[in-house]
Amino acid sequence: MKVKREKWQKEFSEWYNELIETAGIQDKRYPVKGMNIWLPYGLKIMRKIERFIHDEMERTNHEEVLFPALIPETEFQKEAEHIAGFEGEVYWITHAGLNPLEIKLLLRPTSETAMYSMFSLWIRNHADLPFKVYQIVNVYRYETKHTRPLIRVREISRFFEAHTAHRDFEDAERQIREDLEIFDRLAKFLALPYIVSKRPDWDKFPGAFYSLGAEVMMPDGRTLQIGTMHNYKQNFAKAYNIKYETETGDHEYAHQTTFGMSERLLAAVMAIHGDDNGLVLPPTIAPIQVVVVPIPKKDSPYDVVAYARGIVEELKNAGIRAHLDDRDEIRPGRKFYEWELKGVPLRIEVGPRDVEGGKAVIARRDTLEKSVIEREKLVDAVRELIDAIMENLYNRAKEFLESHIKRVDSLEEAKKVFEGRRGIVEIPWCGEESCGLEMEEVLDAKMLGTPYPEEKAKIEGKKCPHCGREAKFIARFARTY
Amino acid sequence: MKVKREKWQKEFSEWYNELIETAGIQDKRYPVKGMNIWLPYGLKIMRKIERFIHDEMERTNHEEVLFPALIPETEFQKEAEHIAGFEGEVYWITHAGLNPLEIKLLLRPTSETAMYSMFSLWIRNHADLPFKVYQIVNVYRYETKHTRPLIRVREISRFFEAHTAHRDFEDAERQIREDLEIFDRLAKFLALPYIVSKRPDWDKFPGAFYSLGAEVMMPDGRTLQIGTMHNYKQNFAKAYNIKYETETGDHEYAHQTTFGMSERLLAAVMAIHGDDNGLVLPPTIAPIQVVVVPIPKKDSPYDVVAYARGIVEELKNAGIRAHLDDRDEIRPGRKFYEWELKGVPLRIEVGPRDVEGGKAVIARRDTLEKSVIEREKLVDAVRELIDAIMENLYNRAKEFLESHIKRVDSLEEAKKVFEGRRGIVEIPWCGEESCGLEMEEVLDAKMLGTPYPEEKAKIEGKKCPHCGREAKFIARFARTY
Repeated sequence: MKVKREKWQKEFSEWYNELIETAGIQDKRYPVKGMNIWLPYGLKIMRKIERFIHDEMERTNHEEVLFPALIPETEFQKEAEHIAGFEGEVYWITHAGLNPLEIKLLLRPTSETAMYSMFSLWIRNHADLPFKVYQIVNVYRYETKHTRPLIRVREISRFFEAHTAHRDFEDAERQIREDLEIFDRLAKFLALPYIVSKRPDWDKFPGAFYSLGAEVMMPDGRTLQIGTMHNYKQNFAKAYNIKYETETGDHEYAHQTTFGMSERLLAAVMAIHGDDNGLVLPPTIAPIQVVVVPIPKKDSPYDVVAYARGIVEELKNAGIRAHLDDRDEIRPGRKFYEWELKGVPLRIEVGPRDVEGGKAVIARRDTLEKSVIEREKLVDAVRELIDAIMENLYNRAKEFLESHIKRVDSLEEAKKVFEGRRGIVEIPWCGEESCGLEMEEVLDAKMLGTPYPEEKAKIEGKKCPHCGREAKFIARFARTY
Repeated sequence: MKVKREKWQKEFSEWYNELIETAGIQDKRYPVKGMNIWLPYGLKIMRKIERFIHDEMERTNHEEVLFPALIPETEFQKEAEHIAGFEGEVYWITHAGLNPLEIKLLLRPTSETAMYSMFSLWIRNHADLPFKVYQIVNVYRYETKHTRPLIRVREISRFFEAHTAHRDFEDAERQIREDLEIFDRLAKFLALPYIVSKRPDWDKFPGAFYSLGAEVMMPDGRTLQIGTMHNYKQNFAKAYNIKYETETGDHEYAHQTTFGMSERLLAAVMAIHGDDNGLVLPPTIAPIQVVVVPIPKKDSPYDVVAYARGIVEELKNAGIRAHLDDRDEIRPGRKFYEWELKGVPLRIEVGPRDVEGGKAVIARRDTLEKSVIEREKLVDAVRELIDAIMENLYNRAKEFLESHIKRVDSLEEAKKVFEGRRGIVEIPWCGEESCGLEMEEVLDAKMLGTPYPEEKAKIEGKKCPHCGREAKFIARFARTY
């Protein structure tokens, strides 16, 4: 890596952009701004994340569906807040072949308006509820802000969206809790500590009753939203006529929720775990968990390649994703560099002395520490190190997150945080939109919202620093991606 | 099923359209013509087909990539034949948000023009070749013909495309042979017999040097193309400047090939193996391979549900996809009907007498035959029946295909075939385009092309029935989907 960690604490972009390409995640040279090409290695990592999501969806009885990517203008225009929120950023298809279309089509920016007229056909009776479906698809948003691979793009090519319908508000709330549990399992799987905030009303999803957002702390002190859960109440059900017959023969509008994530999950992994040498992948999603590099020596009687191959075989038989790098034409130092760049969690090096002594050198990607292990204890050692790496990645990211959350009582203290190493500032808040918006302005930061679940106890006796009235909430502010 | 087999020999459409929805494959009511929704059961089957394709790609060292779905007009216009072939059926994105785009974008109808300017950046040296990538993505074609789910649609949501680059024509030819081998393995996996034809020049892929097409025989005697392989020679490499440095330091244009398939694979499976009672799935792709239905009897001392559950557990432990249908509120007859409709290969029924006697009744979906099996031999019996079903499905489809290929010497004989039960007619042909096109007109059929690999021996002494000159080829004609 040309850009070093010391620097990227402040200049994250440069480091990130270099890594995206050098580690083989995406190619940014596609001739449409904000649309990038998934390269094989990046896609393999993303597929592992998706596999976990698919498995979680199956575990929680969500069914997979696939809707068309094109939505007729007439469907899109049924829910007023939703249109207002998205119309500035949709791509319009106006012609097909050489002729104009009678009804314009738009590329889905999200799938509510594609799905919900079908929901009204599928959901008839209380026995159909809860109704839970999901898809992982490409969606499109004409971003006018500066684009950044995986983080802010015009084609989100891996967009996860779960859509559910329920008999009442309570069951929709139960779904939100399930979403939070799934999200928590996924975040652990990726070794990503996070916080959840309930968005202020002026920043909720267009058409939602309320929105939750899950954020991680990026190395430059800005936050990145990597998951959202929305309770729509009956807003969309009324616009799309999604009704069900109750046990007593009445007809009620369904309550709905959604849960969204995207390739930003991978961006968070890259940014939070990565270092000066490149990617640092959690072993859970590393396409290669252990790379074995033989280091032959001329005139040595020991066959290091055969020894290395034996190790790879044994690791594979133990269910570990191991790879033998026996390329002749490339020197070991260069191989180490490449595999570190690609974030492979463990590297095993074997030279003639290791063969002779029945040992191997094992290097951790997260700490760069090396140790010598007995050949016969290698599989166990690898298993233990994989666990240790997961734990270390999570713990050091958690420490970083926690050290970047500061609770203050005044706007002056808050300003200082943003002048310094940034992070999240928590401020007592009266709950008025006008105070919230003005604090955003003063701090040049976004209100992420209020901690979720709510922290009632911690605001007692506190005042809103903007208006001086009694605080009803803790409000979180941050510079965001 | 309302429509019966006797009828759908001639009126396939009605049967097929009914099955698509009743078996839970797709919902056709999406409000854009020719774009359908994948329902959970259909998608599960399709995912099994895709899994096999992914595995084959890995086996043959193709790397997975994902390109954006949007192509700038400027990239699309680099290869003249290709534009001419597709410009009548592309969807145009002309606006984003509230503004017109500076450069119009089109939705990919296929990805040559999205990929090849990147290939020219990625491929530099002979060591980069062969270069082999693939993706499974959504593509768009504004079909003006009658649309039909999975077969002729405006959004092909599961489109497989492999793109390769090679040092010379010979290596590209080797790739085509590999594609044919992969296709053959896939066709066996789906129990689909097929034929391969080299398309006539007037019907090759726009921009190709030559095109191969693989066809299956549908129950109504029409053919369905389910795979294509194209050798592009250097046509696209010249348009997109894909050059590599040879060992001697010269710069040569790469040779390219593509290999394409789609959700039509599932259409072929449905149409060819299906019957009066609905789907008949090859066990290889059945989401449920064995359904176990307990048939309780009032006042019986035997716990049939527990017995059935034990069978399901044992089957699952043996790696068989088994499902217990213990729904209380639905009668066994209704369950049989549902699972037959969904094409589950084997059904096991257990009543009190089976529990008492340590037996089970097992019913094959393909033949509808039932037999009584000893409980302890059940897993082995299921394994054997799964193999027997695969074999039977393949053999009966092969017999149907072969009985619908007729080799004739005159156009009169050929016409009779199309008046009767249809199928494929093979006719000697001089090789002239004018003769080929006129025979298409006379027969009201399409020339699929010439048998591939070529059958030189069989045309000796034969005449082209249109012009009377010596035949150089066998030409295949059929009514096609």
